[in-house]
Amino acid sequence: MTEIPDKLDPALIDRFAAIVGDKYALRDEQDIAPYLIERRGLWHGATSLVLRPGSVDEVSRIMRLATETGTPIVPQSGNTGLVGAQVPDTSGREIILSLSRLNRIREIDVLSNTVTAEAGVILQTLQEAADAADRLFPLSLAAQGSCQIGGNLSSNAGGTGVLAYGNARELCLGVEVVLPTGEVFDDLRKLKKDNTGYDLKNLFVGAEGTLGVITAAVLKLFPKSKGREVAFVGLSSPEAALSLFSLAMDRAGAALTAFELIGKRPYDFTLAHAQGVVRPLVDDWPWYVLMQISSGRSSEDSRALIEDVLSAGLEHEFVGDAVIAASLGQGDAFWNFRELLPEAQKPEGASIKHDISVPVAMIPRFIAEAAGAVASVSAGARVVCFGHMGDGNLHYNISRPVDGDDEAFLALYHPMNKAVHDVVRSLHGSISAEHGIGQLKRDELIATAPPMAIDLMRRVKAAFDPAGIMNPGKVI
Amino acid sequence: MTEIPDKLDPALIDRFAAIVGDKYALRDEQDIAPYLIERRGLWHGATSLVLRPGSVDEVSRIMRLATETGTPIVPQSGNTGLVGAQVPDTSGREIILSLSRLNRIREIDVLSNTVTAEAGVILQTLQEAADAADRLFPLSLAAQGSCQIGGNLSSNAGGTGVLAYGNARELCLGVEVVLPTGEVFDDLRKLKKDNTGYDLKNLFVGAEGTLGVITAAVLKLFPKSKGREVAFVGLSSPEAALSLFSLAMDRAGAALTAFELIGKRPYDFTLAHAQGVVRPLVDDWPWYVLMQISSGRSSEDSRALIEDVLSAGLEHEFVGDAVIAASLGQGDAFWNFRELLPEAQKPEGASIKHDISVPVAMIPRFIAEAAGAVASVSAGARVVCFGHMGDGNLHYNISRPVDGDDEAFLALYHPMNKAVHDVVRSLHGSISAEHGIGQLKRDELIATAPPMAIDLMRRVKAAFDPAGIMNPGKVI
Repeated sequence: MTEIPDKLDPALIDRFAAIVGDKYALRDEQDIAPYLIERRGLWHGATSLVLRPGSVDEVSRIMRLATETGTPIVPQSGNTGLVGAQVPDTSGREIILSLSRLNRIREIDVLSNTVTAEAGVILQTLQEAADAADRLFPLSLAAQGSCQIGGNLSSNAGGTGVLAYGNARELCLGVEVVLPTGEVFDDLRKLKKDNTGYDLKNLFVGAEGTLGVITAAVLKLFPKSKGREVAFVGLSSPEAALSLFSLAMDRAGAALTAFELIGKRPYDFTLAHAQGVVRPLVDDWPWYVLMQISSGRSSEDSRALIEDVLSAGLEHEFVGDAVIAASLGQGDAFWNFRELLPEAQKPEGASIKHDISVPVAMIPRFIAEAAGAVASVSAGARVVCFGHMGDGNLHYNISRPVDGDDEAFLALYHPMNKAVHDVVRSLHGSISAEHGIGQLKRDELIATAPPMAIDLMRRVKAAFDPAGIMNPGKVI
Repeated sequence: MTEIPDKLDPALIDRFAAIVGDKYALRDEQDIAPYLIERRGLWHGATSLVLRPGSVDEVSRIMRLATETGTPIVPQSGNTGLVGAQVPDTSGREIILSLSRLNRIREIDVLSNTVTAEAGVILQTLQEAADAADRLFPLSLAAQGSCQIGGNLSSNAGGTGVLAYGNARELCLGVEVVLPTGEVFDDLRKLKKDNTGYDLKNLFVGAEGTLGVITAAVLKLFPKSKGREVAFVGLSSPEAALSLFSLAMDRAGAALTAFELIGKRPYDFTLAHAQGVVRPLVDDWPWYVLMQISSGRSSEDSRALIEDVLSAGLEHEFVGDAVIAASLGQGDAFWNFRELLPEAQKPEGASIKHDISVPVAMIPRFIAEAAGAVASVSAGARVVCFGHMGDGNLHYNISRPVDGDDEAFLALYHPMNKAVHDVVRSLHGSISAEHGIGQLKRDELIATAPPMAIDLMRRVKAAFDPAGIMNPGKVI
C-alpha cells in the first residue's frame, strides 16, 4: 500500500491542476465551498482541491497520478447524496473529483431503447431528452433537478419509479469506469442478455465510488405511457393498504406505477406547514395511499383500470375513501403533496430519520412493532411514516415530542436508530433501502451485517482498490 | 495455494463419503455415468466420486474438507448446461457435488411475491408450485423438466420469458451460498430495495459455480396472466420484424411476453423432420415471428391487444400474414413448433452453433453481415437462424452444406466461430447471450474480451477462491 501523505503538497496540487487546467482546478475556499456543503448539514469535510475534468481521459490521468502519489480521491456528481458518500473527510488531504463537466448524452437509440449518458448529466435533463425522443426514462426522485447520473448509479438510486421499472441498477445495461490505476474499463454495452463471465457492472453500481469512478453508462428507455391516473386514498390501517396493494397488483400488474403510503401525521404536517397545498380528501383517515396507474394504451384505459381497482377496494372495504385526480393538474398536486412530506416535517423540530425496507408482506408488522420500539426510547416521540410501500421501503422518521427539546431528542440518535433497526433486522429487512451507506451507516453496517458479508466486501475492495485511494472511509 | 493431488486417494474418498453417507457417495462407474454424460456429447469428464449431500450443512462440510485437502469440486444440479460448466475434467481428481437432493421449496410468500427454493428444485416443479399458489414463476426454457434452480442461477439462465420478466439474475432477490472454505453466506433476502454495500449476490449468479456453491435462493413471483394469445406471423425481412417488434412494444408494452424470430430454413427443417407438427401459415415467408401477448385482465383483453398489434402491422406492411391461435391447444402447438427447431436441425447433418446477442436495433445488420461471414468460411453452409429477437439474442446455427461431409464441416468449427463472433464484436454484442462460458468459450473469452475485464474477473476469482478449488478451468 502506498503511503498516504498527511496534507496535500502544493507541488502535488499543481500536478493535479495541470491535468484539467487552472480554470477547472478549484483551490479558492469560496469556489470550493459548494462542493463541501450537503443539504442536511451532517458532514463538514475539507479539501484543498476540487478537480473538474472535461473528459474521460482527464479522469484517467487524475486517477493515475492519484495512484502514483497515494492521494485519496472522493468522486462527486450532483452532491445530493444523503449519507455523506460524496463528502471528503476533515483532513484536507482528499481531493474532490467532480464529474459535473462530463455531461454529454452520447447517444439515444430509440430502436434498442437505450441512452448512453455521461456521469455528470443531470437526471432531469436525461428525463427530458428521453421524452423528446418519445421515450420514458423512469428514474425519478426528489433531487432530480440537481442530482446526476453518476451519483444515481453509484448510490443505486431508488425513488418513485422503482415499483414498475426497478432501481438504478435495474435500469443500467453497461458502464464505463475509470479504475483507481487510471485504466478505463469500457463495458458500455446495450445488451439485454450477456453471460460472458462475472457481473462486474453491478459491483460498480452501488459502490458509492469506492471501487472506481463511473464516467458513463448505458441506461434503459421505455415506451411513454399514453394515460396516467393518480388517486388519493384514505384507509383504516396498514393491513388495508397491503390488501389494496395486492389487489392493485393483481388487477393492474405492470401498469401500477406508484403505491406510496402516507401516515396521518406527515399528512397533517403537510397541511399545516406546506405552502399552497390543498387537502386531498375531505375526511381524516389514519392512513393514506397515493396510487398511480399508467397505461401504454390510452387515458381511457388507465381511467378504467384505476376505477376498477378502487371500486373493488371499496367493495372489499380496503378503501375507506378515494379521489381520482380530475385533471393532470390535480394529479400533479397530489404528487406535489407527496413530495412536500419531508420538508413539512422540519417545522415540527428535530427529527431522526430511517430509510428501511422489509418484505412487502411485513410492512404492517414493522409499523406495529417499530411504534413500540420508538416509544420505548422516547415516550412522546412522534412517528412520521411514509414511503414506497410497493417496494417494501419506508422513510420511517421520528419527530421529537411536541414540547420536547431538539438537542435532548437528537442525543437519542443512536438508541433510536438501534431500536428501529433491531425491528428491521428481526424482519430480515434492510437498514438502508435506497440511500446507501456512505459515512452515515458505515459503522452500523460493519457492526451488524453478517461478518461473512463484510469479509467478502473487504475482499472485493482490496481486489479493486489495493492502495485504498478510492473514497476511503465510505461503505466498508 | 494448497497443493492439488494428482489422483483422489481412496482414504480421502472415504472421508468425503462419510459426510453424506455411503448411499449418497457414488463410486460405482455405472452410478456415476449419468453425472458425466451431457446431452450434446461434447465433453467427456471423469470422476471417482459423486457426492449427493442432503443438507446445506453437508455441503458446508464437503467444502471445508475440500479446502483442507485441496480437492477440486465441480458443482452440478440438473446437468443440462450447454457449455460444459457442470462437467469435470478428465483427470479423475475432481469431485462432482450434486445439489439434486437439496430440492425443498422452503417457502412461498404470496403477499411479498417470493419463493425460497433450494438449488436442486427442478424448474418445472417450481413453476407448478407457483401456479398452485396462484402466482407465475416466469423462467421458462427447453430443459425445464430436468434443469434445476441452482444451475439456472449459476448460469444466469435466459429462455423465452426474459422479454417481459428478465433473466434468472433479475428474478433473484437473495442467495444462500456455501463458500470454498465451507462458510455459509446467508443472503436470503426478500427485499426489492437494499443498498447496504456491494452487490455480492450478482457475483454468485452467473459465476457457474466458480466462486461458491449456491444452495438456495429467494426468487420473484408475479401475478398470473388471465389471458394469453399467441400468433404466428410471416414477414418479408428482419427489418420488418424489427418494425413489428417496436410497434408491439409501443402498443402492448409489458404485455408483450414473447417475440421469437424464426428463419425460413429452421421453419422448413421443422416441417420436414419434426413429428406431428402442423404448418402454421399457408404461404411461405422468408421470416416468421412467434408473438405472445399476455394480459393480467382477461382473455378478451389479450385478444384485443394482439389484434390491434397485428392489424397495425398489416396496415404498415410489416406483417405479411398472421394467424392468431384459435385455442389454447393451437397456441401450445405454435410453441411446440418453436421448441422443436433445435432438434429438427439434427437430421440435416453436422452443425456449428452460436448463442449471440447484439443491441436489438442491430439484429437486421447482424443477420446480413453474418451471412457473408459464414459464406466466406463455407460457401454452401446453411444458416439456421432463430431466437429471442426481443432480447437481441439469436441462436445463430450453421448446418453443413447439403451434400457436405460432417467431419470436414466440423473441422471449420474455429474459423466459423471466429467469423460469426467477429461480426458480433463489431456490433458490440455478446458471444454468449444466455448459455454462459463454461469450458466451451473460456479460451475465446480470455483471448477476445477486453484485457481489463479479464483482469478484474481474475481478481474476483482470486479473492473468493484463493485455493482455486471451485470448478477449476471454467469461465476464467
